[in-house]
Amino acid sequence: MTDLKNVFSGKNVMITGGLGFIGSTLAYRLAEYGARILLVDSLLPEYGGNLYNIRGIEKDVLVNISDVRDQSSMHFLVQGQDYIFNLAGTLSHTDSMKDPFTDLQINCVAQLSILESCRKYNPGVKIIFAGTRGQYGKADYLPVDEKHLMHPTDVNGINNIAGELYHILYNNVYGIKACSLRLTNTFGPRHQMKHHRQGIINWFIRQLIDGQKVKIYGSGEQIRDTNYVDDVVEALLLAMASDKTNGEVYNLGGTPLSLKELVVKMIQVHGRGEYAIEPYPEEASKIEVGDYVANWQKFKQATGWEPKVSIETGLKKTFEYYEKNRQYYWKGL
Amino acid sequence: MTDLKNVFSGKNVMITGGLGFIGSTLAYRLAEYGARILLVDSLLPEYGGNLYNIRGIEKDVLVNISDVRDQSSMHFLVQGQDYIFNLAGTLSHTDSMKDPFTDLQINCVAQLSILESCRKYNPGVKIIFAGTRGQYGKADYLPVDEKHLMHPTDVNGINNIAGELYHILYNNVYGIKACSLRLTNTFGPRHQMKHHRQGIINWFIRQLIDGQKVKIYGSGEQIRDTNYVDDVVEALLLAMASDKTNGEVYNLGGTPLSLKELVVKMIQVHGRGEYAIEPYPEEASKIEVGDYVANWQKFKQATGWEPKVSIETGLKKTFEYYEKNRQYYWKGL
Repeated sequence: MTDLKNVFSGKNVMITGGLGFIGSTLAYRLAEYGARILLVDSLLPEYGGNLYNIRGIEKDVLVNISDVRDQSSMHFLVQGQDYIFNLAGTLSHTDSMKDPFTDLQINCVAQLSILESCRKYNPGVKIIFAGTRGQYGKADYLPVDEKHLMHPTDVNGINNIAGELYHILYNNVYGIKACSLRLTNTFGPRHQMKHHRQGIINWFIRQLIDGQKVKIYGSGEQIRDTNYVDDVVEALLLAMASDKTNGEVYNLGGTPLSLKELVVKMIQVHGRGEYAIEPYPEEASKIEVGDYVANWQKFKQATGWEPKVSIETGLKKTFEYYEKNRQYYWKGL
Repeated sequence: MTDLKNVFSGKNVMITGGLGFIGSTLAYRLAEYGARILLVDSLLPEYGGNLYNIRGIEKDVLVNISDVRDQSSMHFLVQGQDYIFNLAGTLSHTDSMKDPFTDLQINCVAQLSILESCRKYNPGVKIIFAGTRGQYGKADYLPVDEKHLMHPTDVNGINNIAGELYHILYNNVYGIKACSLRLTNTFGPRHQMKHHRQGIINWFIRQLIDGQKVKIYGSGEQIRDTNYVDDVVEALLLAMASDKTNGEVYNLGGTPLSLKELVVKMIQVHGRGEYAIEPYPEEASKIEVGDYVANWQKFKQATGWEPKVSIETGLKKTFEYYEKNRQYYWKGL
């Protein structure tokens, strides 16, 4: 297995979306490895950035509040970086339909802009882009591999396709090393808990902690592939550390479960709670993707990665984190 | 076969890029059918719009000079249209690499904006989007069908993917009827002849008319699939006229030829001329797509379309047109 500490120790590492869920969790790992860490985040109110996410590593990271859409700050910040984890982006399916232009600006224009900054000021850098299973849309077959056609059901999926393709193009044409991981439903500590539009698993957890009945829309039988955040962080680090991944795209995946199975497990782990199955709201039904299971063998073969955290352990750690730190993520009922 | 006159007679038809190569050729056909035609064009100097392109049908069309990036004019112009042929867009591979943001604004942002205008002010409309074989990039196999993965080699290809996907999404989610045709190398009268960056076939024709030696980059063996513009116009009309095409994407194609074969045919048709094979310029080699041959059976099955104009006839008409009208397209040597 790759000696990640050896790879990242003393290296300059920038994380866009660095105060968010995955970015901040990644920062903890990089701090352990002794990397020089720059966290770039816009702290937009509806997104996942939260200064509490870096509690305990404040002295190990440099925080720069700026928006990836701000070209001149990106021009400056990319300089001197060895590695960029490019995690800033919107994730909400419904928000992208309500305000498609903001989604386009963040997920297309800003991505192109970061790559242009690298081309001009730091062409030797390596970048990992966080793609999404939303790029595929409704699956034609399961499990979905990287050869699956992309026909997304929402604007966010389309813009992520373009964002990813820019990275691969700049790898192929300009020699900037780039790789994309297509993430599936990731859950765990440090995810924003203000609303349900950026990750349904964490939202269910909040509902249970608040003693609310969990609402599952649709049949409850729809399958989602899940990853605990630590496994995704490991994947990001391995993708960055390997030269084999340059110019490549990979699926991540882990434990596929129906939403109902997932909520039942949550209730077991939490020790209490109840759920209800309800019809889809009109707006959600049209962009619902149906069952999704990822085939992540290509990434396993390239890097040796496989998810290690069981769904039960992941849920247990997540409940523990939010029960202890709820006040920093949402106001109680 | 569909009675196109019956479909379009008296209908309100808007063409974006309406003073350009394909748009204006389409306008002639629609004028024959008695459609009420609105041509929207920005007349940007480096693009294909040319008022001379509509000589003879000036009284049958309404011309509105505006840019598809101008949201408020689009909001107004889409209203009351039965059909929109959405042909405005940049086509240049090299320009898209030099100025990726302009390409993004025109091919992504403006497309989304037109669709938003339709959603708000004319959701009953049908739109045909002009996609491109550049969306596929280097072919994994030939002939390329619509199930071929998309891994474009330039920014223009990426932005066209997003532009197309927005159309299909708005079809699926909002019921705006939309279809995309992925065009291959189209040639014929009314194409701009100021530079080579938007269609190599017409550029070769200009070189021959000017008595210059045609420069073919690469081996000369690279295959391009070619369509004469009248066949593309027929395809656009058939795609618009059929309900089967709603939400679908189709390849067009016709006569695949190596660039060398193509130039040899041109010299035969023209009666004189010479060519030279030269190495690719550095910038072009990295985005060169290699051989491309389209499989257009899906579109034939849906609409009965097939190309009717032979390469010889197409080239002959094109030479005749420019020899007669050169002064309106370029200054002689």
